[in-house]
Amino acid sequence: MAQPQASAGADTGKPPLRVGMVGYAFMGAAHSQGWRTAGRVFDLPLSPQLAVICGRNADAVQAAADRHGWAATETEWRALVERDDVDLVDICTPGDSHAEIALAALAAGKHVLCEKPLANTVAEAEEMARAAEEAAGRGQVAMVGFNYRRVPATALARRMVAEGRIGTLRHVRVSYLQDWLVDPQFPLTWRLRREQAGSGSLGDLGAHIVDLAQHVAGEHLAGVSALTETFVKERPLPTAPSSGLAAVSAAGTGQVTVDDAAVFTARFASGAVATFEATRYATGRKNALRLELNGDRGSLAFDLERLNELEYHDGTEPGTHSGFRRILVTEPDHPYLEAWWPPGHGLGYEHTFVHQARDLVHAVADGRTPEPSFADGLQVQRVLAAVEESAQKNSVYTPIAA
Amino acid sequence: MAQPQASAGADTGKPPLRVGMVGYAFMGAAHSQGWRTAGRVFDLPLSPQLAVICGRNADAVQAAADRHGWAATETEWRALVERDDVDLVDICTPGDSHAEIALAALAAGKHVLCEKPLANTVAEAEEMARAAEEAAGRGQVAMVGFNYRRVPATALARRMVAEGRIGTLRHVRVSYLQDWLVDPQFPLTWRLRREQAGSGSLGDLGAHIVDLAQHVAGEHLAGVSALTETFVKERPLPTAPSSGLAAVSAAGTGQVTVDDAAVFTARFASGAVATFEATRYATGRKNALRLELNGDRGSLAFDLERLNELEYHDGTEPGTHSGFRRILVTEPDHPYLEAWWPPGHGLGYEHTFVHQARDLVHAVADGRTPEPSFADGLQVQRVLAAVEESAQKNSVYTPIAA
Amino acid sequence: MAQPQASAGADTGKPPLRVGMVGYAFMGAAHSQGWRTAGRVFDLPLSPQLAVICGRNADAVQAAADRHGWAATETEWRALVERDDVDLVDICTPGDSHAEIALAALAAGKHVLCEKPLANTVAEAEEMARAAEEAAGRGQVAMVGFNYRRVPATALARRMVAEGRIGTLRHVRVSYLQDWLVDPQFPLTWRLRREQAGSGSLGDLGAHIVDLAQHVAGEHLAGVSALTETFVKERPLPTAPSSGLAAVSAAGTGQVTVDDAAVFTARFASGAVATFEATRYATGRKNALRLELNGDRGSLAFDLERLNELEYHDGTEPGTHSGFRRILVTEPDHPYLEAWWPPGHGLGYEHTFVHQARDLVHAVADGRTPEPSFADGLQVQRVLAAVEESAQKNSVYTPIAA
Amino acid sequence: MAQPQASAGADTGKPPLRVGMVGYAFMGAAHSQGWRTAGRVFDLPLSPQLAVICGRNADAVQAAADRHGWAATETEWRALVERDDVDLVDICTPGDSHAEIALAALAAGKHVLCEKPLANTVAEAEEMARAAEEAAGRGQVAMVGFNYRRVPATALARRMVAEGRIGTLRHVRVSYLQDWLVDPQFPLTWRLRREQAGSGSLGDLGAHIVDLAQHVAGEHLAGVSALTETFVKERPLPTAPSSGLAAVSAAGTGQVTVDDAAVFTARFASGAVATFEATRYATGRKNALRLELNGDRGSLAFDLERLNELEYHDGTEPGTHSGFRRILVTEPDHPYLEAWWPPGHGLGYEHTFVHQARDLVHAVADGRTPEPSFADGLQVQRVLAAVEESAQKNSVYTPIAA
Repeated sequence: MAQPQASAGADTGKPPLRVGMVGYAFMGAAHSQGWRTAGRVFDLPLSPQLAVICGRNADAVQAAADRHGWAATETEWRALVERDDVDLVDICTPGDSHAEIALAALAAGKHVLCEKPLANTVAEAEEMARAAEEAAGRGQVAMVGFNYRRVPATALARRMVAEGRIGTLRHVRVSYLQDWLVDPQFPLTWRLRREQAGSGSLGDLGAHIVDLAQHVAGEHLAGVSALTETFVKERPLPTAPSSGLAAVSAAGTGQVTVDDAAVFTARFASGAVATFEATRYATGRKNALRLELNGDRGSLAFDLERLNELEYHDGTEPGTHSGFRRILVTEPDHPYLEAWWPPGHGLGYEHTFVHQARDLVHAVADGRTPEPSFADGLQVQRVLAAVEESAQKNSVYTPIAA
Repeated sequence: MAQPQASAGADTGKPPLRVGMVGYAFMGAAHSQGWRTAGRVFDLPLSPQLAVICGRNADAVQAAADRHGWAATETEWRALVERDDVDLVDICTPGDSHAEIALAALAAGKHVLCEKPLANTVAEAEEMARAAEEAAGRGQVAMVGFNYRRVPATALARRMVAEGRIGTLRHVRVSYLQDWLVDPQFPLTWRLRREQAGSGSLGDLGAHIVDLAQHVAGEHLAGVSALTETFVKERPLPTAPSSGLAAVSAAGTGQVTVDDAAVFTARFASGAVATFEATRYATGRKNALRLELNGDRGSLAFDLERLNELEYHDGTEPGTHSGFRRILVTEPDHPYLEAWWPPGHGLGYEHTFVHQARDLVHAVADGRTPEPSFADGLQVQRVLAAVEESAQKNSVYTPIAA
Repeated sequence: MAQPQASAGADTGKPPLRVGMVGYAFMGAAHSQGWRTAGRVFDLPLSPQLAVICGRNADAVQAAADRHGWAATETEWRALVERDDVDLVDICTPGDSHAEIALAALAAGKHVLCEKPLANTVAEAEEMARAAEEAAGRGQVAMVGFNYRRVPATALARRMVAEGRIGTLRHVRVSYLQDWLVDPQFPLTWRLRREQAGSGSLGDLGAHIVDLAQHVAGEHLAGVSALTETFVKERPLPTAPSSGLAAVSAAGTGQVTVDDAAVFTARFASGAVATFEATRYATGRKNALRLELNGDRGSLAFDLERLNELEYHDGTEPGTHSGFRRILVTEPDHPYLEAWWPPGHGLGYEHTFVHQARDLVHAVADGRTPEPSFADGLQVQRVLAAVEESAQKNSVYTPIAA
Repeated sequence: MAQPQASAGADTGKPPLRVGMVGYAFMGAAHSQGWRTAGRVFDLPLSPQLAVICGRNADAVQAAADRHGWAATETEWRALVERDDVDLVDICTPGDSHAEIALAALAAGKHVLCEKPLANTVAEAEEMARAAEEAAGRGQVAMVGFNYRRVPATALARRMVAEGRIGTLRHVRVSYLQDWLVDPQFPLTWRLRREQAGSGSLGDLGAHIVDLAQHVAGEHLAGVSALTETFVKERPLPTAPSSGLAAVSAAGTGQVTVDDAAVFTARFASGAVATFEATRYATGRKNALRLELNGDRGSLAFDLERLNELEYHDGTEPGTHSGFRRILVTEPDHPYLEAWWPPGHGLGYEHTFVHQARDLVHAVADGRTPEPSFADGLQVQRVLAAVEESAQKNSVYTPIAA
């Protein structure tokens, strides 16, 4: 008798969406979890298939395929992109290869999901956005992986802003605080080299908060005034290829060529005033992406370390009984919650990837441009470029190119 | 070309552990997620297979199988129990059928995972514990599903108590607060009928906190003094079979035959003094399982609504710099965290079922009695029986039968 | 030229209320602050005068008078009670002398403020309540010092309950957690001796929470089921007279004759179910008086360690945007806040004594019985007696004598 | 018989320190509370006397004197400054009169306490600092009223930084959020007019956070890059003289000539990177002065809305048990706490003025320059000037003049 199998989609009678994923480190594991789970929780029009996983080391990629449940492997991303049995290419590599892979995948007629930041330069991002727009004409979809839009609490925040619940926006304060570089002996992984990562905390953490703040606010930044810093300028070289996060100490040392921290003030298009901070040196803050918006009718506050909660202050209530309330974003009418657990039974970090997969599958089935699109990714890239330009020009206020 | 499939285990070369699950409502969905994910995240000795799912309604069970990824279906649990291609029977039905199914499964040579509470009566639980002990002699394992032991924060709390970090235990205060019965129009589902559910908040929520408090404290309760209450004594009948949690209003009404709330004081074996509260009437508290332990060297506090956190007070520190610290239980050396995400990237409710599956697979592979065993489940049942007895006897202090 | 003086009342043209205070330890300092400040912040009909302070040790009482600003001293409370220039006797001594002093003061025609608990026995409290009632006929007022009613947040909570904002009461959970007895070397002060303190954590902390819970709930307890414990049964004798809180180690040891902790479940008159806990062994909890009330329309929660805040859940709001809100109880329309600082500029512990003085002055001027009256104090005493009786009778449910 | 009086100092045998206060609105009330209480709680070398209070309206100032307990009144500050029975002049007026009064008081040989900001311009502040330095040679002391240095939690934070507990400073993030200008109908009080207030949120809130951040960090800012905004440019004129905070609507409207909000990034002398935000438009934030410092060995965080707490993360602990701990800053060995209540019995806003009075009295008695000195106030003024300059120059990074 045949082995019963927990296959994803084969047994549902739904058309498959065959995914080919490039890269299998931290993001690869998270995306695998997303693809594997989305069709099991949500009622999707297509059934995601974990078809092919790609990495340069044959043994390592096979181990990743076994662990995460991918049916086949490749060691060359170009081979994966050309496979007939791949409908969507999911790019989980460092930023320096995003453009090349994405352009090839779009050219090969594939749908694309590309991890953030979209690219390491504005020029690359522009080319990618153009290619995505053309591919859209051929029915292909392309999405950039700003997964924090898919935390139910941030999605609820966006909805509440759009409903007018906080009124005219006055202030946004947003920070993304981590602390994994505090130790000067942490090695010089690819995330600390400009040629691979493009930038440091700015492209890694800053990209997230720029996208999320604009997404929740429902408007774009107009300009920034920035200051960046590299606190520890030399670090030990890693002894082995690493995932970017793992600490492997080694003999020699090398130059850190990216920012350790980036802070900037900004104006939104509406005139709201903002502060941003991205750092890997905030001792004790592990993953503190914090976002607060103050409008003339109310305020919203979020902290990724408590991702099932959204704080809301309704400024139209009498002061006697008003206050910031902790909304436990686990009710059935909250975003993405229709399919999960009863109220109060919280979700975790990886659910953002399940929700991302859900939304992307719907976009593919509907043939419409998903959010965030490559154009959205490009716009974030332009903000990051303005931040770097301002930092280089003595913090002078630098408008964002339209 | 064959469909690539996200199969669980078939591709790993590991021996399979073929699961047959009875029931497919709330717990069924949660257990499915656990079985599907455990082998993808943790390095397990056996590969869990979602082999057979069983429910009385053929269409509904097929839909559940498709949704959750089970390979086959049955409509009679006795048929499932007898299947050769099932190694482990996972019982997710209401409490009144636990004993019958578990006894049959053990008799059929299967391993068993049984949802909590173990049974609706002490007599049933005793029989189940006896059967499990005999089956253990034949290499079978039996576990009861107190999943909250597998929240990393509670597992860490237990470890810290065992390490002596809080010293001699003085106080335990524990409550499990929900609010889904506040509306008197919520219908009379099976969870509100004694014949099916055994008891109300006591067996549902109380069982969890009795087990968790004893587990973390590392000792048993000696006696209790209890008070129970049914605030709303009559409720509308549901129009359709429900999962116990869903609200479906209807024409007629029926008697609520279980407790709405149970509160009790208790003594632990060591002399520590405790308060317990289980209720479904705590407006605004959605899933507030709170546990605090005070010892003469320190204290620990946990709240399931913030399940990635454990509060710890080290009483041996100088008062000048001491205070309850919020441990974000997401570090690689925290329980279960070796396989998940970087620090600060939290987990959710369903991960308890992934961890439960992980631990059970190891127990099966090692041929050792898992925790919590059926004997543990029986002991909790005895506490619940003492609570009911005390409540009936004017709250008189009632020792727990050994 | 005469010395300018920060006198209380002499310069305001208002009739004075001349206070004579017995006792000058912790409570004496707090009451002094209350009397000194009330007329400076609130617009009072009478001007409180710190007239006479009394203590057995002449030097110590003179030092206290100088420190706290009392105009005269006495070393015999009977002398103070008889003075013509004292209008109100403020009793800040241990519980064993409350009855005698209060009865004498009432007999001497004085108004009385008596620290809680009203007395060490129900019999004493009954006599005091009778005397207060008779004195009321002569225009005298008598108040018991349950100062936590005068935290703005608890006063607001009471008002909100009375306004129907939480609907029918279902649950009350209240605890008062301190940790100053965790160290077994803490000496045997008067607070640990039954003959002086009457009881331990029960009369000290338990009295507060029984009064506060009933006050906020707006109803009385009907019965209790209790359990008390003395964890450390022998302690070093103090070397010097102490204030009850100060730790002074010594050579010999003595028997602790009061409870270290008291826990009890209870029913309110309306049928609401409650848990109470009072302890001095909750390591790391310094002054955690926590009160939560759940009704069928809403909930309220308070923690004395964050006394400027009240948490409120409005259960009538749609779940989508509801949650426990943190009301910062510092708005001008909050209780007692009309006279203090702008919103967000919080108050502290001692302000409860300022508010107590304010309310008592008004009651004296209006000639009406203040709250909490001696009758209220007696009723709390009856609850404490029922707690002790239940604890002695194997926790059996014990109705509160009416 | 003489009226007993709660006089401050006359009865203690200590030499008096006779205070003359100019201004009697919000700050006047707070300072009165400070002077009245300091000698009653702390053991001071001099006894503060509330000697003379000054205001332009004779009736109003007499009412204030009666309310707050000042012995005499003046309607001309010059008269007060010249009085022989005044030792110390306490300046609680709007910023535009600080320089004139302070210079006159110093010239008249008085000690001076001047509310913050020290002045409305750097030039004035320089003159004041010079005068203070000269006066110091004559044994006079001059202090500027940055009262938030005297919150026990911020004082503890400074001590911990100085002890090296957070190591090398990397990040400071600080904000002072209020919301009393959100309503566009709030009238144009003196606080919204440049000629009186000097600046808006910058001088009011920004001055506080610049001083506090530097004080706690133990180092000065090197430069800033700033952005300011006036959201509501026209407001109704008030109908009556107001305290600056009270809302009194009126017929006509006038121009708001100060900033509503100021945000800036900054570098500290050591290279640490900072963000600052001061605003009166943060709906729902009443008095949220928040300060966080991250160093390479630890972090500290403070929020004025919870002023009895300091959060501390010890980065040298093993990650397994580390986390931000909530220090309840109420222990006897915490700053200023030796004289207050038992642990957990918190203080409030006004206690900062009691502590300020305490420290100033000691400085007067010891004949040493108090902190913060006028030189400190001048340095803050230079930071504010650099902020304004940067905001006018397109946010360009602007060094702080030394």
